[in-house]
Parts: sequence; structure tokens; C-alpha cells
Amino acid sequence: MEWHEDLESIAGVPTVALDERAGACVIIDQTLLPNRVVLEHLDTREQLYRAIDRLEVRGAPAIGVAAAIGMYIDAYHWMQELESLAIMSGADADWAFAYEPNVNDLLAHLDETRAYLDSARPTAVNLSWATRRMAELAHRLADEGASARAVVAALRDEANAVIAEDVERCRAIGEHGAPLVAALAAEKDAPVGVLTHCNAGRLCAVEMGTATAPIYTAFEQDVPLRAYCDETRPLLQGARLTALELSQAGVPTTLLCDNMSNSLMGTGAVDLVFVGADRIAANGDTANKIGTSLLALAARAHDVPFYVCAPTSTIDLSCASGEDIAIEQRAASEVTELHYAQRMAPEGIEVYNPAFDVTPAPHIAGIVTEKGIAYPPFEQSLREMVEG
Amino acid sequence: MEWHEDLESIAGVPTVALDERAGACVIIDQTLLPNRVVLEHLDTREQLYRAIDRLEVRGAPAIGVAAAIGMYIDAYHWMQELESLAIMSGADADWAFAYEPNVNDLLAHLDETRAYLDSARPTAVNLSWATRRMAELAHRLADEGASARAVVAALRDEANAVIAEDVERCRAIGEHGAPLVAALAAEKDAPVGVLTHCNAGRLCAVEMGTATAPIYTAFEQDVPLRAYCDETRPLLQGARLTALELSQAGVPTTLLCDNMSNSLMGTGAVDLVFVGADRIAANGDTANKIGTSLLALAARAHDVPFYVCAPTSTIDLSCASGEDIAIEQRAASEVTELHYAQRMAPEGIEVYNPAFDVTPAPHIAGIVTEKGIAYPPFEQSLREMVEG
Repeated sequence: MEWHEDLESIAGVPTVALDERAGACVIIDQTLLPNRVVLEHLDTREQLYRAIDRLEVRGAPAIGVAAAIGMYIDAYHWMQELESLAIMSGADADWAFAYEPNVNDLLAHLDETRAYLDSARPTAVNLSWATRRMAELAHRLADEGASARAVVAALRDEANAVIAEDVERCRAIGEHGAPLVAALAAEKDAPVGVLTHCNAGRLCAVEMGTATAPIYTAFEQDVPLRAYCDETRPLLQGARLTALELSQAGVPTTLLCDNMSNSLMGTGAVDLVFVGADRIAANGDTANKIGTSLLALAARAHDVPFYVCAPTSTIDLSCASGEDIAIEQRAASEVTELHYAQRMAPEGIEVYNPAFDVTPAPHIAGIVTEKGIAYPPFEQSLREMVEG
Repeated sequence: MEWHEDLESIAGVPTVALDERAGACVIIDQTLLPNRVVLEHLDTREQLYRAIDRLEVRGAPAIGVAAAIGMYIDAYHWMQELESLAIMSGADADWAFAYEPNVNDLLAHLDETRAYLDSARPTAVNLSWATRRMAELAHRLADEGASARAVVAALRDEANAVIAEDVERCRAIGEHGAPLVAALAAEKDAPVGVLTHCNAGRLCAVEMGTATAPIYTAFEQDVPLRAYCDETRPLLQGARLTALELSQAGVPTTLLCDNMSNSLMGTGAVDLVFVGADRIAANGDTANKIGTSLLALAARAHDVPFYVCAPTSTIDLSCASGEDIAIEQRAASEVTELHYAQRMAPEGIEVYNPAFDVTPAPHIAGIVTEKGIAYPPFEQSLREMVEG
């Protein structure tokens, strides 16, 4: 039975979790963030499919974890249903517990569920990776003579392993990245400014996230810091998700529009950039949410170190360079129509919102006025233009 | 009497105009764009004040022109009212026409109107510049013995001069800038790609605008081109205004989010950038809408020439460099709440909306994974990380 629970905050709540007692996948419904925090308890494959399809759960690692849990809970309820039928058909509870369904029926059911869940987001590599991992385990154990009940128990352990691996991977990224923040804190009187783009945060994994992991880890180590989040048009993951998760974790957080990073860096506020990755080519070229490469130009112009944080599964050695990475073009309506008519950032979030910025003269080829075009050196050409 | 008129398109319609017969200032209500094109006919200072205050007319040159027209129409109706009173009090029309109000009463009334209009947007330099120009003319003519009627006639001519000067300035910027586009067209088989930021377009002036003037002029000269508009968060002037005015003028136009310029330039689509300016320092450093300096970094990274288009009145020789330019911080709600719940770009506009971009490895300081940090050269460190 699907049910919902309203929370005050996402702090400390896993993005995706397994409720073993209820046989449910428990997710934070990300379509309602930042305005409402709702936990969804999902216990059928149909509910899982809808949650993935509607982006209630999103982010490659989180989708993988949800799919692994989905495979298990589906097998668990398949088993429960057979046991209930056995009781209803007159057997007593002891018999029902001893009742052993056919393992081949379970495998057939799991294969069906795997294909069904995979179709929820066909391009999500982690989704099919997780369902394959679960299905292949079941087949292998059955081949080795395991009972249906033993297969279901193994699937539960495997789902927990998928969760634990995700938690551990993010934790390790945090451990490796936090010293980068701490080292800067030692050199600086003010809090270290860390800028991130899109949401490579805990809301795309189980806990901590990837680009946010060093921020959370450094914050837990009492390193004085301030996080800056690009809002990340067109889908506003930075404003809706990253600004929310960081601020609700207690991290001092400032939101800015994507076009403000160069201006912000000009104030000296940013010491470090952490971004996630969708794919890293063998030469280090990194595909990530649109806008990342522009942010890197700003970081470079201000000598701000720019780090990519990602699990090694993101590194694709078969891809020599960024030129081999195909970029998806998305629907125009994401740009021309906004879905967030009202508030689309957490309440009380700090905002950097300068009206203008200054473009340094060396970046300007010429200044076209009604009197003609002034070329560098501008000190001379502008004076002549104004006074001439 | 204020009245409204719905139009199909803004093409060919001046942003601000004087309707001499009705004694009205006619503006395109920019708060309704891009979803509706409504002409507002304003004939009292209260209506003008509201239109300026509510940003129905915006952009420094357009505000200046509206204020100059406002000073004239206010004087015109002041005169009309006295004539009507004269007729109503029993005088015939001939007498009313011959009736000569006291010029000092007119000056007092104009001074009051000037202070009132100036208070609609106290920081808008062009607003107070225009009302001062009109008021000072009236005082000078009165000092030289002109009648009230002669002063009103001179104010009409001055308002028309303000309009004509704005049109001429933009036309001249277009004439100077268009050859930059045409020269690139000669070198290229495909249309010349011209990217612009915010709205330094005809909707901020009477006709043609500043940054858009070379685009319109080259387009009129049949230079094959395509305009690219940054949407310009937070207030979306690029999406709502520039994309509308260019596409309705028939210019092939593509809209993109601000964080996409570097990606777009990577495709080779952009040959030239034209932006406006709020203030240009003596050394050429240019303050313009937030995001301009980031766009300049992208242009520089791709060897795309980046031009500022502005009237010489924008050049401030008293300002040595960009460091002397104070930048206004604006309300957080502009970033955290969106006012355009539905469509916020013109119907049918083409959109560039890649999901990701590729950050070149030389811009990346390190790649943090669960196994540690890979540093350049990445060919080696990534291989070791994946295979190690």
C-alpha cells in the first residue's frame, strides 16, 4: 500500500531507503521540493515505475538504488502473496511458512519486473545496471539450487549491499575531497567559498552525494565554509534541490543565477568549485550538466581550482576525449515555459543577485557607438570618441 | 483618457511615440510581453508615472523619451483645460483660442510635473535628464519673453527632437556595426551567428536599439544571419523581449539559457557577440547586465569577437576603470520566485537546449573519486584510478 508522510526537513533522511519490515522502497518525492518534503512508501513495481518515470526519484545513483530495492520488494510481495493464498486456501500459518513456491516462477516474475522497470527510463544506465545485477544474482542462485525463499532473502541482502556501496562511495569521495576545503581554510580568515552546479548532491544518491560530499564532510569536520549554488537553468536543480539540501543540513548557503558566477568570483568569495560528472573521457574531458564548462572558464579566469567529483564508474576509458561524447538536446518547452509559478527555492535562502557585472576591457574587441567603433587601446580611442 | 489597443505584433511599432493629435504618449506595455502586445495611450502625468513605475516602459533611452513626451503632453493638456474652462465660462471658441494663460503658471506647473515624474524612478538618469531638458527649455523661452502657447509649441518640437535624436543614434550604431556582420558573412557559407545578452534592443529605445541595431541593419541589408539570445536570468529580458522583437522583425532567432553560451560557441554557431552597456569606464571596462562578463569569457575562449554597442553618453571618462563602478544588489525574490508561471518566450521561437556540456580537461584541477584524486596529466592518472 502506497502512503505518504509529510516531514519538516530532508536533513538526515535518506533519499532512497529500504523499509524491510513493510517491504517498501521509501523515497523523498523530489517533484514536490523545495516547497514540501514528502516521504513516499512504495511497495509495488507499478508504484516504483511511476516514481522513476515522474522523476520523483532522480539522479543516476539514486535511480539505481531504487531499482535494486524495487526488484527485491517485488520478489518479497510475490512471495507474501503466495503465502497468503496458501493460508486462505485452508493451510495454517506454519504450513504457509513452510510452503515453498517454485523458484522458476520467481525467476520468470523477476525477469518480467526487470523489463518493466527498465522501460521507466530507458536511457538511465544505472537503472538497467541495478535490475540486471539483481536478476543475474537470482538466476545464479537458482542455478546453484537455491530455493525461492533463499533467493528472496539474497535479493534483500543484495539491495542492502547496493545501498551500502552507494553510501560508502559517496563517503569516500567526501573523505578525499574534504582536505581540499580544509587546506584552503587554513590559508584564509573568512569561510571557504565552495561553488557547485546542478545537483550532484545527496538528493541524487542515498546520502552525501558526489560533488556535495566534500562539502558535507568538511562541514562535519567544522571547517568554516559557505556553499554557493548555481540555480541551473532550465530545470533549476540547483535552486530547488542543492540549495535545499545544503541549507537544511545547516551549511551556510547562497543561491545565484548561472550567469553570476564570474561576478561572484570577482568578489573573491569563491575558493573552490566542485561539480559532478555524467561521463569522464580518458583524457579527463568531463560531460556534466549544461553550464559546467562555462563555470570552468570563470574559475580559470579567477584562478579558482575546479574539481570534478564522481565515482570511478563515471570514467569511460573507451571514450578518448570529450569529442566522442554525444550531447542530448532536450525539449524547447523546458526553456520557454516555467513550471515553478511560485517559489522555486527554499524559504530563507541567501541570494547573490547583482544587477550588472563589469567586463574587463581586454575581453572587448571594440565599442560601437553612434560615432563609430572604438578599438583598443581604449584609453585613447574612447577619449577621442567622447571629446572628438 | 487612457486607452489600450491589442496588436498582432510589435514589428514596426515604435516602443514610445508621441500622438500629437491626441496629445498622448503611446507605449508598448512591456509587462505584458511576450504573451500580449498592447499599445497604451497615456495622456496624463499620473498615467506616465504609473507606466514608468510599473516598468511598462523600460530601458534608459525609452524612459528618457517617454519622460520628454510626458512633459509636453502635460503642458498641452494644461493649456487645453484652461481653454475649455474659458469656453465653458461663456467665451466663444475664438476667444478661447486667443486666450493666453500666464506663462509663469505654466512654468510652475511644469516644475511640479518634472519633480513628480522624476520620482517614478529616481535612479534612472535618463528620466531626470529628459525632464530637466524640457523644463530648462521652457524657463529659457519664458525668460526670453515667450508666451505660454509658444512654450507649449516649443516643448512639442523638443519632444520630437528627443525622439529623432534617439532614432538617429541607434541608426548610426547600426550603420557602424553592420559591416562587422557583413565582413564575417563574406568569409562564411552559413549565416553569421550573432549572440546578444539581455535586451539592448528596440524595446529599450524608440527603434532599432543599441546592441540589436547592427543586427537589424545587417538583416535589412540581406546579410544572412541568425541571432542568438541569452534568456538573461533573473528577469528574463532576453527570453521575453529580445527573442520577441528579433523574431517578430523576421530575424531567424534562437533562444538559449545563460549557461549555454560556451556550449553553443563550441558548435561554431556564434561568430560575433554584441552587448549593450550601462556604463563604460575610460579604460573600456564595461558595466552591463549581469552575465555579460561571463559571456565575454566564453567569447574569448572561442576567439569570438565581443563588441559593446552603446551611445557615447554611456562612456564615463570620470570613471577610470570598472573598479570605480558601483554594482546594485537586487531583491532575492527575483531569483527565488518566478513571475512567469506559464509561457515566457515567444511562441514558435527556436531553442538551443543541450542537457550537458563538456569541460575541457585543462580547466579541471583534479577529479575526486572514491579512490582518491586524479591530477593532470589525466590520461595517466585516470587509467591508474580505473585499472588500479
